[in-house]
Amino acid sequence: MTAALLNSLVTRLSPPPIPAVQAWGKSYGGGHGPLIDLSQAVPGYPPHADMLQWLGEAASSLAYTNYGPIEGETPLREAYAAHVSDLYGAKFGEGNIHVTSGCNQAFICAAMAVAAAGDTVLMTDPFYFNHETTLAMLGIKTGFVACDSANGFVPTVEAVERALTPDVRALALVTPNNPTGAIYPPEQLKAIFDVCRKHGIWLILDETYRDFLPEGYGAPHGLLAEKGWQDNLIQLYSFSKSFCIPGHRLGALTAGEKVVEEIAKIMDNLQICAPRAAQGAVARALPALAEWRAGNRHEIEVRADALREVMTDLGGWKLEAIGAYFAFVRHPFEGRSSAEVAEQLAKRAGILAIPGEYFGARHTRFLRFAFANADAVTIRQLRGRMVDFSL
Amino acid sequence: MTAALLNSLVTRLSPPPIPAVQAWGKSYGGGHGPLIDLSQAVPGYPPHADMLQWLGEAASSLAYTNYGPIEGETPLREAYAAHVSDLYGAKFGEGNIHVTSGCNQAFICAAMAVAAAGDTVLMTDPFYFNHETTLAMLGIKTGFVACDSANGFVPTVEAVERALTPDVRALALVTPNNPTGAIYPPEQLKAIFDVCRKHGIWLILDETYRDFLPEGYGAPHGLLAEKGWQDNLIQLYSFSKSFCIPGHRLGALTAGEKVVEEIAKIMDNLQICAPRAAQGAVARALPALAEWRAGNRHEIEVRADALREVMTDLGGWKLEAIGAYFAFVRHPFEGRSSAEVAEQLAKRAGILAIPGEYFGARHTRFLRFAFANADAVTIRQLRGRMVDFSL
Ligand SMILES: Cc1ncc(COP(=O)(O)O)c(C=O)c1O
Ligand SMILES: Cc1ncc(COP(=O)(O)O)c(C=O)c1O
Repeated sequence: MTAALLNSLVTRLSPPPIPAVQAWGKSYGGGHGPLIDLSQAVPGYPPHADMLQWLGEAASSLAYTNYGPIEGETPLREAYAAHVSDLYGAKFGEGNIHVTSGCNQAFICAAMAVAAAGDTVLMTDPFYFNHETTLAMLGIKTGFVACDSANGFVPTVEAVERALTPDVRALALVTPNNPTGAIYPPEQLKAIFDVCRKHGIWLILDETYRDFLPEGYGAPHGLLAEKGWQDNLIQLYSFSKSFCIPGHRLGALTAGEKVVEEIAKIMDNLQICAPRAAQGAVARALPALAEWRAGNRHEIEVRADALREVMTDLGGWKLEAIGAYFAFVRHPFEGRSSAEVAEQLAKRAGILAIPGEYFGARHTRFLRFAFANADAVTIRQLRGRMVDFSL
Repeated sequence: MTAALLNSLVTRLSPPPIPAVQAWGKSYGGGHGPLIDLSQAVPGYPPHADMLQWLGEAASSLAYTNYGPIEGETPLREAYAAHVSDLYGAKFGEGNIHVTSGCNQAFICAAMAVAAAGDTVLMTDPFYFNHETTLAMLGIKTGFVACDSANGFVPTVEAVERALTPDVRALALVTPNNPTGAIYPPEQLKAIFDVCRKHGIWLILDETYRDFLPEGYGAPHGLLAEKGWQDNLIQLYSFSKSFCIPGHRLGALTAGEKVVEEIAKIMDNLQICAPRAAQGAVARALPALAEWRAGNRHEIEVRADALREVMTDLGGWKLEAIGAYFAFVRHPFEGRSSAEVAEQLAKRAGILAIPGEYFGARHTRFLRFAFANADAVTIRQLRGRMVDFSL
């Protein structure tokens, strides 16, 4: 009898980071009051009561028990197409939308649609860790576009061009960014998109945190209104954060109709269709809860302001970037790794943050604070805990 | 400006077969009465009323809105571990179970856990088409174990051995089988598993239709009670068919704890966790609706009997295999492809079946009837329509 082998592309991945970080929180004794969990990016307020009601109605309905269309429920695709048409100032139809089971799934669909094992996809450094591990497990090679605090962690055109090699099939960007919070300005996105078009590569744009841009920001960018965008752009979104329903697993891709057709083949293999009942509920919520979402956008800004205040003059801690959902914070402990600092901060100060090195080895002087998880009153409690903390 | 390239492993896949077949049904004029849809394998009766109520309760609850554990909700993993412990006569715990968003997702997780692009996975021929397309899009090579009506479409040990090459990492089997309905006898599965263990490859065993084995069949097989099974076996299941909730997307893997840990890494990238609310509801339903499921098993047998009766002496049509959910039927039209026959049968006789060639090019003389979709009264209407049908 011979034990069979596992795929080394998978075995060599580290275990998922979020559960590991959450385990640190469980060893916190509670001496400073309840744990302040700024680890996983989850909205720190509940979904709207109507949302819960609609989810319940849809889930208990016979209408959603059977298999549904691979690309998603027509009412949701239409409602979402109308929403993105408004947002980006261009016209999209049902055929431009593919519903997925969350935005991680939207990303793997996009990655598989454009790259096979052996091809290369570029990411920023720091990167969203699931993007990196997704590509690694598929045997897709990764190249990195270094982003630094000097540019507010926004990638430069030069850095993108330097990273281009002949086997690059796509550049994956996240704006507003995870982990840094950086918001990529529309003109910068345009300049980078031009590079992608010039070189015949895809831009995969993950806008999971789009609804938390500052109030009055306007369109996140103009790329989806560019003529021929379908040939080089795949845009990703998550309903998890905006509707506070990550447990229901819904996201969406916006792409050219040809790309949507290819992604339907991938989705059929991955899981046939996204869960249906939640699609029915979100189709209702998308127009109906617009005002509620606007209120949350405001609330997140209040939280950002609270964090800015907390981080002012905080003995060696430095807020290097802050945006829609996240802050990227430099820790004061020269020579100590971000994993060490985050672990001790969790266990001793009851503050759960993600080590910067999880987003790229270079970033070991940083911690990511998902500040949107906690209200302003809670955020203000960080100060005392951090002032008292030493290593 | 240069349009970017799509992944040729994906573009060269045919479009998903089910929607294509369903489109034929839409061109049926209704002359023989309502369309009889025996295409996609979906239970032809509704879920239990309690199931719908529990789904609604869970979906409207705050408890399931946030991200959940990657491996699945503990109550479902425990309830399912207890269920498989009973069924296979061995002891499993939560750590042996990974919940997925349906059994297609369980399959891609298993495939990625054991094989990378360039490795080979064996399947039977005929095969379940999503297994074939899943491997193809990952760049995993496929080898085939020919199954024929002479052996009731059950793979022989010799055929498995003949298909083995040094780069084979796994053999994927489906029992009860899709498309043939064949039920692989426990001793045959044991003999094949022994070959896998001898050669150090994985057996991936998809038992989506396990709950529709004939009444009194007993344990589907003894493999999960073999010492050291964890080194060579990954078992897959779907809640779609047994609970009539495919739209809620739930399935599960049973494997060694080490494999479950690797699959958690894959699932984190694929979609973080399966939708949570339905997991909560199925955890309740698994013990509570055991009797209802037993009743359905009986009902499906009644349907199988009705089909056997219909197919007796039916002018050249021949029932070559029938089992838990499917029948594999030889059509009488020498020289005409199964796609042609199925298309015309849909459009003119209002009978929707899947062309045999979709399960492997060799099977163009067959159609797959998912007879479990229709009640016995409806199944009896097939006879008249098929007797009148000519090409
Ligand atoms: C940048 C980014 N993309 C995608 C996701 C995944 O979101 P979803 O819950 O929709 O899968 C996250 C979640 O944290 C994220 O930060
Ligand atoms: C053999 C087999 N495996 C897996 C599946 C997928 O089932 P699920 O709905 O759980 O994804 C099916 C569905 O038809 C099937 O026939």
